Amino acid sequence: MLFHVEMTVSLPHDLSSDVVAELKATERERAQELQRSGKWRHLWRVAGRYANVSIFDVSGPGELHEVLSTLPLFPFMDVKVAPLCRHPSSIREDDT
Amino acid sequence: MLFHVEMTVSLPHDLSSDVVAELKATERERAQELQRSGKWRHLWRVAGRYANVSIFDVSGPGELHEVLSTLPLFPFMDVKVAPLCRHPSSIREDDT
Amino acid sequence: MLFHVEMTVSLPHDLSSDVVAELKATERERAQELQRSGKWRHLWRVAGRYANVSIFDVSGPGELHEVLSTLPLFPFMDVKVAPLCRHPSSIREDDT
Amino acid sequence: MLFHVEMTVSLPHDLSSDVVAELKATERERAQELQRSGKWRHLWRVAGRYANVSIFDVSGPGELHEVLSTLPLFPFMDVKVAPLCRHPSSIREDDT
Amino acid sequence: MLFHVEMTVSLPHDLSSDVVAELKATERERAQELQRSGKWRHLWRVAGRYANVSIFDVSGPGELHEVLSTLPLFPFMDVKVAPLCRHPSSIREDDT
Amino acid sequence: MLFHVEMTVSLPHDLSSDVVAELKATERERAQELQRSGKWRHLWRVAGRYANVSIFDVSGPGELHEVLSTLPLFPFMDVKVAPLCRHPSSIREDDT
Amino acid sequence: MLFHVEMTVSLPHDLSSDVVAELKATERERAQELQRSGKWRHLWRVAGRYANVSIFDVSGPGELHEVLSTLPLFPFMDVKVAPLCRHPSSIREDDT
Amino acid sequence: MLFHVEMTVSLPHDLSSDVVAELKATERERAQELQRSGKWRHLWRVAGRYANVSIFDVSGPGELHEVLSTLPLFPFMDVKVAPLCRHPSSIREDDT
Amino acid sequence: MLFHVEMTVSLPHDLSSDVVAELKATERERAQELQRSGKWRHLWRVAGRYANVSIFDVSGPGELHEVLSTLPLFPFMDVKVAPLCRHPSSIREDDT
Amino acid sequence: MLFHVEMTVSLPHDLSSDVVAELKATERERAQELQRSGKWRHLWRVAGRYANVSIFDVSGPGELHEVLSTLPLFPFMDVKVAPLCRHPSSIREDDT
Repeated sequence: MLFHVEMTVSLPHDLSSDVVAELKATERERAQELQRSGKWRHLWRVAGRYANVSIFDVSGPGELHEVLSTLPLFPFMDVKVAPLCRHPSSIREDDT
Repeated sequence: MLFHVEMTVSLPHDLSSDVVAELKATERERAQELQRSGKWRHLWRVAGRYANVSIFDVSGPGELHEVLSTLPLFPFMDVKVAPLCRHPSSIREDDT
Repeated sequence: MLFHVEMTVSLPHDLSSDVVAELKATERERAQELQRSGKWRHLWRVAGRYANVSIFDVSGPGELHEVLSTLPLFPFMDVKVAPLCRHPSSIREDDT
Repeated sequence: MLFHVEMTVSLPHDLSSDVVAELKATERERAQELQRSGKWRHLWRVAGRYANVSIFDVSGPGELHEVLSTLPLFPFMDVKVAPLCRHPSSIREDDT
Repeated sequence: MLFHVEMTVSLPHDLSSDVVAELKATERERAQELQRSGKWRHLWRVAGRYANVSIFDVSGPGELHEVLSTLPLFPFMDVKVAPLCRHPSSIREDDT
Repeated sequence: MLFHVEMTVSLPHDLSSDVVAELKATERERAQELQRSGKWRHLWRVAGRYANVSIFDVSGPGELHEVLSTLPLFPFMDVKVAPLCRHPSSIREDDT
Repeated sequence: MLFHVEMTVSLPHDLSSDVVAELKATERERAQELQRSGKWRHLWRVAGRYANVSIFDVSGPGELHEVLSTLPLFPFMDVKVAPLCRHPSSIREDDT
Repeated sequence: MLFHVEMTVSLPHDLSSDVVAELKATERERAQELQRSGKWRHLWRVAGRYANVSIFDVSGPGELHEVLSTLPLFPFMDVKVAPLCRHPSSIREDDT
Repeated sequence: MLFHVEMTVSLPHDLSSDVVAELKATERERAQELQRSGKWRHLWRVAGRYANVSIFDVSGPGELHEVLSTLPLFPFMDVKVAPLCRHPSSIREDDT
Repeated sequence: MLFHVEMTVSLPHDLSSDVVAELKATERERAQELQRSGKWRHLWRVAGRYANVSIFDVSGPGELHEVLSTLPLFPFMDVKVAPLCRHPSSIREDDT
């Protein structure tokens, strides 16, 4: 089941650089683990912004929330979610 | 080169059903042709709305405009475009 | 799987009253059928507006779109969708 | 009397983790007490956001304000309220 | 039970002047009847706009919707509703 | 001369509780004094929000600004002002 | 008593050119009459938009509404109003 | 004197194709004449939208309005204007 | 050359009262100097808000930026600028 | 390949003046280096705001992000990006 997610990150400027480095490293590790599991199917950077556009393939809203809310950067994110479904004109079998 | 495109369609209610059927059929045909060519890489329906989220793989903004502005439903669309690039945490080689 | 849906209806003022009456009657019939099937779990009127707040219980985004996009009033609706999941503080077993 | 309430929480990043833990624990306790009393009829998490959608069943705006403004997390919430009433197409007797 | 209501009217420019005159006359009649009954407690014109700010005193959201949705100009209104309650610093007994 | 004013208060979370208590006490005192003078004609709490809707009866914009800008909580308020006038359908002589 | 008014005009494209010419001529006549009377104190065109910024000097919100709502183009205007008062740093005696 | 202008065009769907063709041809002619005169210094299409971003070099707001408001498509445009000036870090002498 | 400027001030609550007093005194001094020079032609307070509406008469966008960006309160302002020109219906020779 | 970029800077008021001076100096140096390389083709100040409008000429979204995200002031910027292409009415060969 696919969900379109747009995450925009705003780090408070008074976080120490150590905390930021740690947050980014664990975020990256978690993101790659989720990609390898197939749950985070696509991940793109939005050019010019500290933001990404992602496609998640999860069992439902519950798992989606579990995945997103445990990301290390979640407390600093503005997140927009939209459920996706097969487009009647799509020819790609795996976009479902 | 990847672009994230969100298209929302608003058909005027006084279009004749023949015109609408013709528009939708040619739109579908054109969308599938563009998918087969690899330029319209992903196409998803946003659940509950007459809208889609798409990923285009084109040679640049010029080709993107050429492709979008010649879609049969273009005059009835609100279109949002964002350029995408490789995310540093992405593990998927083809998301570029 | 639960989705929160807010529908706001705007009927063009130049629709004939016959068409409007027919639309509303078939919409009502369809809404009640979907409620009886358990897919449209809750349906409330927003006081003072031609709008409703609803909770749908469907198998996923695909069925949600199928249900919403075939409502007779769909072409005249602005629809907002948000996926819901169990709240960690909820005590109600059926709100899932 | 039913009210639709959407609460979005933003915790300042410089609250100590002890304060946050205490706030969340008392919030949870209070939320469950209000659910048991029947005043907080439904409570769902919005997937991907630190937010909930709720239905309150109270004696009027005065009690609604009393309940919401005494929640431990109230100072950190953005709250949207909409009064609800029976929908003419609803078949569910208890959605009133 | 008090509700704050802001109504903004947009009449389509192609309504005939007869229809408009009839709508306005019946709207006025209905508004005055509701004021005499005590349900439409205050009614002010917002200076410079075809809009009003009103305070309704009704038995709940159901009666509020019944009153608003049967106004002759309702199909041409954008309506915003907010439930009101006694302010802790108010000294006026009847503002409840 | 009537003005519709909506005030929304946001207290910074790092104000000491003493400062907050003092601010609220003096705000309340000042609000009641202004109500007794007739200048703050109505004052309602918006249910579920730290906000009020008010009607001021002052000699003009100058006095309105003098009154609002000297409220103890003014530095923490977002204020919206709209001038009101008699509605042609109003039957209440004192709503002017 | 001064009010800041911004008017944006949107003429429906299917008004006949005769009607438009008549509307603009009477609007112009009325605007100049109001300027001569001193009630419409300043009138500027916003460069690049069919809009103006104006300062009105009237006896109160009632007269402001009377003046604005009887302008020939009023039905086609979006109007924003803000009451003005003397700025403490102003050195100009007539800006009051 | 430079101004940044963004124009978004919305053609009503019921304009005849002859009228549209005529409008576009005269618009193009006028745009090229203004470019040759040096007043319309830059003109870019925004990819994916019926919109442009332009830089005008005119003698002031008066000439800017004269130029924009006489464009054939002006009645169908939403126009945003921002005055520009030399950036302190710019190294390009002609960007002034 | 006229520009319409709206400035809204937000002072951080943790500025010391000395710094605030100093900022306001130098702002006032600078504002009066600019008014005496004729560059800040009009200055009004927006009733109920820490904001002003102003008309500047400067040689172009460059001077406008120079004037605004050197105001002592500039770092705490949200500024909106619109270029103005003579309105065809204006009868006032100096509104140019 | 051209991109239109609008950057708005918000410096936290509690940054030390040394840090700010350093940030601005390195930003200026980097901006001039990018202009000399031809990648930052145009750079204008938006009059009255701590913001710029820029045109970048880069090899694609990837290089655009690389350039923008490494600017010293990037963490304090709100950035809007729009891909540009040749306008069919443009007569300027280098606006591509």
